Amino acid sequence: MSIVYLVPCFGLLALLFTAFRSAWVTRQDAGNDRMKEIAQHIADGAMAFLKAEYKILTYFVIIAALLLGYMGASHANSHWSIALAFVVGAIFSATAGFIGMKIATKANVRTAQAARTSLAKALQVSFTGGSVMGMGVAGLAVLGLGSLFIILKSYFGAAANTAEMIKTIEVLTGFSLGAESIALFARVGGGIYTKAADVGADLVGKVEAGIPEDDPRNPATIADNVGDNVGDVAGMGADLFGSYVATVLATMVLGSETASNDAFGGIAPILLPMIIAGTGIIFSMIGTFFVKISDSAGLNTSVVQRALNMGNWGSIVLTLIASWFLVNWILPDTEMTLRGHAFTKGQVFGSIVVGLAVGTLMSIITEYYTAMGKRPVQSIIRQSATGHATNIIGGIAVGMESTTLPILVLAAGIWGSYSFAGLYGVAIAAAGMMATTAMQLAIDAFGPIADNAGGIAEMSELPKDVREKTDILDAVGNTTAATGKGFAIASAALTALALFAAFVGVAGITGIDIYKADVLAGLFIGGMIPFIFSSLAIAAVGRAAMAMVEEVRRQFREIPGIMDGTGKPEYDKCVAISTNASIREMLAPGAIALIAPLLMGFIAGPEVLGGFLAGATVSGVLMGIFQNNAGGAWDNAKKSFEKGVDINGETYYKKSDPHKASVTGDTVGDPFKDTSGPSMNILIKLMSIVSLVIAPTLADRFHTRDAAPVTKVQEAHKSVKAPVVTYVQKVK
Amino acid sequence: MSIVYLVPCFGLLALLFTAFRSAWVTRQDAGNDRMKEIAQHIADGAMAFLKAEYKILTYFVIIAALLLGYMGASHANSHWSIALAFVVGAIFSATAGFIGMKIATKANVRTAQAARTSLAKALQVSFTGGSVMGMGVAGLAVLGLGSLFIILKSYFGAAANTAEMIKTIEVLTGFSLGAESIALFARVGGGIYTKAADVGADLVGKVEAGIPEDDPRNPATIADNVGDNVGDVAGMGADLFGSYVATVLATMVLGSETASNDAFGGIAPILLPMIIAGTGIIFSMIGTFFVKISDSAGLNTSVVQRALNMGNWGSIVLTLIASWFLVNWILPDTEMTLRGHAFTKGQVFGSIVVGLAVGTLMSIITEYYTAMGKRPVQSIIRQSATGHATNIIGGIAVGMESTTLPILVLAAGIWGSYSFAGLYGVAIAAAGMMATTAMQLAIDAFGPIADNAGGIAEMSELPKDVREKTDILDAVGNTTAATGKGFAIASAALTALALFAAFVGVAGITGIDIYKADVLAGLFIGGMIPFIFSSLAIAAVGRAAMAMVEEVRRQFREIPGIMDGTGKPEYDKCVAISTNASIREMLAPGAIALIAPLLMGFIAGPEVLGGFLAGATVSGVLMGIFQNNAGGAWDNAKKSFEKGVDINGETYYKKSDPHKASVTGDTVGDPFKDTSGPSMNILIKLMSIVSLVIAPTLADRFHTRDAAPVTKVQEAHKSVKAPVVTYVQKVK
Repeated sequence: MSIVYLVPCFGLLALLFTAFRSAWVTRQDAGNDRMKEIAQHIADGAMAFLKAEYKILTYFVIIAALLLGYMGASHANSHWSIALAFVVGAIFSATAGFIGMKIATKANVRTAQAARTSLAKALQVSFTGGSVMGMGVAGLAVLGLGSLFIILKSYFGAAANTAEMIKTIEVLTGFSLGAESIALFARVGGGIYTKAADVGADLVGKVEAGIPEDDPRNPATIADNVGDNVGDVAGMGADLFGSYVATVLATMVLGSETASNDAFGGIAPILLPMIIAGTGIIFSMIGTFFVKISDSAGLNTSVVQRALNMGNWGSIVLTLIASWFLVNWILPDTEMTLRGHAFTKGQVFGSIVVGLAVGTLMSIITEYYTAMGKRPVQSIIRQSATGHATNIIGGIAVGMESTTLPILVLAAGIWGSYSFAGLYGVAIAAAGMMATTAMQLAIDAFGPIADNAGGIAEMSELPKDVREKTDILDAVGNTTAATGKGFAIASAALTALALFAAFVGVAGITGIDIYKADVLAGLFIGGMIPFIFSSLAIAAVGRAAMAMVEEVRRQFREIPGIMDGTGKPEYDKCVAISTNASIREMLAPGAIALIAPLLMGFIAGPEVLGGFLAGATVSGVLMGIFQNNAGGAWDNAKKSFEKGVDINGETYYKKSDPHKASVTGDTVGDPFKDTSGPSMNILIKLMSIVSLVIAPTLADRFHTRDAAPVTKVQEAHKSVKAPVVTYVQKVK
Repeated sequence: MSIVYLVPCFGLLALLFTAFRSAWVTRQDAGNDRMKEIAQHIADGAMAFLKAEYKILTYFVIIAALLLGYMGASHANSHWSIALAFVVGAIFSATAGFIGMKIATKANVRTAQAARTSLAKALQVSFTGGSVMGMGVAGLAVLGLGSLFIILKSYFGAAANTAEMIKTIEVLTGFSLGAESIALFARVGGGIYTKAADVGADLVGKVEAGIPEDDPRNPATIADNVGDNVGDVAGMGADLFGSYVATVLATMVLGSETASNDAFGGIAPILLPMIIAGTGIIFSMIGTFFVKISDSAGLNTSVVQRALNMGNWGSIVLTLIASWFLVNWILPDTEMTLRGHAFTKGQVFGSIVVGLAVGTLMSIITEYYTAMGKRPVQSIIRQSATGHATNIIGGIAVGMESTTLPILVLAAGIWGSYSFAGLYGVAIAAAGMMATTAMQLAIDAFGPIADNAGGIAEMSELPKDVREKTDILDAVGNTTAATGKGFAIASAALTALALFAAFVGVAGITGIDIYKADVLAGLFIGGMIPFIFSSLAIAAVGRAAMAMVEEVRRQFREIPGIMDGTGKPEYDKCVAISTNASIREMLAPGAIALIAPLLMGFIAGPEVLGGFLAGATVSGVLMGIFQNNAGGAWDNAKKSFEKGVDINGETYYKKSDPHKASVTGDTVGDPFKDTSGPSMNILIKLMSIVSLVIAPTLADRFHTRDAAPVTKVQEAHKSVKAPVVTYVQKVK
């Protein structure tokens, strides 16, 4: 049984790595005074946002925890522990965001300075910054989940397939709920911030005033660079923390239902996802050492891309090999069963392979649809020649088309992993995909660091070759960010299905029959949620960007000498606009995600809520892929003009009319790909977790457990009388 | 039993009305020679398109009929009759489109001439043109359905709840399949044609050359006016013909399963939807006489709108009252039962009321989201001040937001109509909504006629006040077109559900459980179809518009004196571009709609196909509402600039920068609202009908009927051995 203690140890090891690498980054040269001053502006702005955000979220966490403690859980002796676990999850998630932002605002200026000497050094600094964040997030997740599991298991005295084990897992669901709630707010808030600043800075600076990106004369430029940190770093950190926890948890929930005759007292299916996550961290650490280039390799993106691929694929392949041994060691030789589906450990490994195949294919397809030089981006470039409108039509068509292959891959993945090992297979497939989150995040986070480094280089008026080097890193970062999103949506879809399956079990229903009129109505309403959520997020960016545009126009108009550099722009006013707008605007979409499943469940019952979740998952995955890829393709269509593009035999460069049309597309794509698109995967998981948390209460309220028990969980649940039902009925 | 003979009589009456009113339109003055010449150009272009389209569709119909005859049907003595019914349905649908286009290309120039004397006269001519089309479509539908039912019933010797009655209805499904297939191609082909021409004409003419809409110097202007006829008239006619037939048929299918002890030998639930459709025609005729204005009422839109509302509401209220009497007369006093759900005739009337309430609410919500002066359009106008990109972001956000209320209304409607009278209630709710299709279509079709009249006035250089009058009619037409789309999508959703329910019964499955992994995979794939379909349709418009832009630019460049009116533009080249592009590009999306359900069904079985249909319906309804409303809102945001709009205290007019941004939004919205958006409702119905047609074959192939029969239909189906199964197996 002592194997479970390995899990928090993996987490501590990752945090140790984080501390060491972070100290290394801090030791690097932070450049001249001008660079330090600008970096300080960015760091202050980012910290101001985080403070404002966390203040609001503290209120939210306290209120939600009180509500959860009062009514959310169904067992007399666990509902306050769920509330407590919720608070811990929220704090861990916030910490993950904080760590990421702290290191990113240090690594940015040091990357700029490193780029003054060599590309290899710049990559080293920025990637180390990213890996500090990746390891920090993964370490906190494994540490939190592992130690909570150990503490709760001994506190409740839980053994396999007992009511106590169910309680243990139920409380862990609270941890995941806390993590995922913070993730949603951080992703949406950060996404609004960064895009309001970006769109605002671009529209007036680039388009109207005709000054380059990151020009220090642009009052919104500091806000723009702060945005990279609060959106692409802190937001993404909280996002992946939540996803990682949710995926492991979903497998644990289904594992707790699985009958297994193993050497660990029957809890091997619960332990497996945690152990795989832990080893994934080790191999991600090893993978980071593969990410190196030599200065003699020249200044081009393919060298950098190859180094990152080495690290990424190295850690994935190593984790896959290790998984084979782990599965063989931990799972029993005899068959396991989950809800009537029997499977062997070999089949569990088969599901893990399916998961990794799905993730890989999703990344490849995403890259195809968003990469420069490929057919989709080329088609947008061609359509830019006939103006803004055809550019937009082209991008929307590409985004919609790009849902086809991923959905077919995903459908095959669901079917394949299920054929191997039933619902446990679907869950472990997602867990396998997410095992190398630490490396994924390192690769994702180095991009915004390099982007920021470029901004600092521009604003400090460093030589052109510095910006050239950071631009190479930034371009590679854009590709990895797009493929990372493909990976994230695939794992989210599988995780949501696993949570959905767990919900069915706990809620005491035997199926979700959309032939029933009310369930179908639920499917419709669920399908609509990603639309209204996206609308709110996109509209928020539009509104905040307009406020930013007006402020920048005002400063250009009113501050004398601002254009010739003798007048100083008021950076802080723009920072304040983004901060206030994002904090205010993140509340409504966040509230929808939390409240909609509660309403559906308590008004219409668990089966309708199941239909709702299915509708939301399908529509959320589609909208996520559509928005991420349309945004990515527009972005790279615009970037293609930097080197010049051929349209019908003529070559067009920046500032040509087709380029202007491509800037419009990029601007429309910004909130798609950085605000609402990436929020979709959090949205669908969060709604599933909320449903899972209220499932026992719903089961009592709608008497779904009164029929003969179907699964062991339902049987175990039945033995515990729920004291909060009377309260809920009173409330209604 | 003789009551059934009333149905084709209603149809003949409507066609008689069509002939009389058509003759009246032809008798009106067609204006001066210049007007006649231009009108002839337009009529020729429209006819050329229809010829090209119908040629391709003839091949399609012959091949599809042969396939259907060979393998689509499951009963030895009915599969060739299904194929025959399919051909008849296709011919009727094509005829409906043809009638509409013939009258529209006559009414347009006569409306222009009438507008030289008075607005009242212009409304009379254009609305009479629209009503010819409306009555023609409804008359053909009722005549076709009614006489086929009578012929087949006596040919098979069918009585209530027998295998012969099932065969009768099955063959009728073939009629609906033919109608809906043509509808899809006509809608998509016409939609691509009209928007390619419109976008092409606007982008070069208005934006680049700075000449007004419908200027005779613009080479694409004839194509643009042809487009109004082939897209908004012929396309819409085929669309509504298909929808009307599908809705009545879906109710008949479920009616054939309903046990009813009535005075018509048990077939009262089958007769009811046909009789309601027939009386709806009569009251639509009466309603047309309410649509009149007096010349003393002045030149404004509200007078015209009020007259149309009078006609619309008059016919709806009269039909509702008549329905009460019809339900009471036709349905039995005793309870009816359908799949275990017992209901009374009072409850059936309740469902009809729910259907009309849903339709009304949908229209009101759609109007809110697309009308000038309301919050959504105002928000887009405001966002036009900061450029093209924020205008687009604003429109997309409005479109996505606009799904919320309609989905809630729809969900409530599904739940409500089901609570009243089970699945029969859901179907009859849709049939009630569609009863006044003749009037709906009259109101929808007068808009493009008036639009064309304006074009002819402009090109013939008639005095400004003529264009003013046609513009008033056009503006009202835009509003009625938008609300008509809201109505169409709501009725399509209910119809699709009814067809879906019919499919479940015929396929011999007891439910569609999305908790099963393969069914969930089907739900994902189904949800993706509207995305790839929209992508293809939108991209087709983009490509065709680009070709048009290049041709117009070429003509402006190469034809000497084209801008000062001494050189003559080559209108026919632009007409040819639109014609060829639309015929070529309509094939891929059409094929997807037909082939996808076949593949899903034969590979994965009926329950997975059920999941697929549910996914496609939910996603199709959402995408339809999103695209229709975003497009409508962008259009009216642009139109608002004609009278000047206030943004932050400044007034902006046409040719201002915010107006240019609004033109971009309108152009993006064009394919949304006139190509892919309105196709969504045909898409989801067509896929349901295809599934229904193959359901018996699937049931045999997957042995779903081997278990105990669940419904009478399944029992009856079981008694007929399917001879084509072996063939299908051989093919596979």
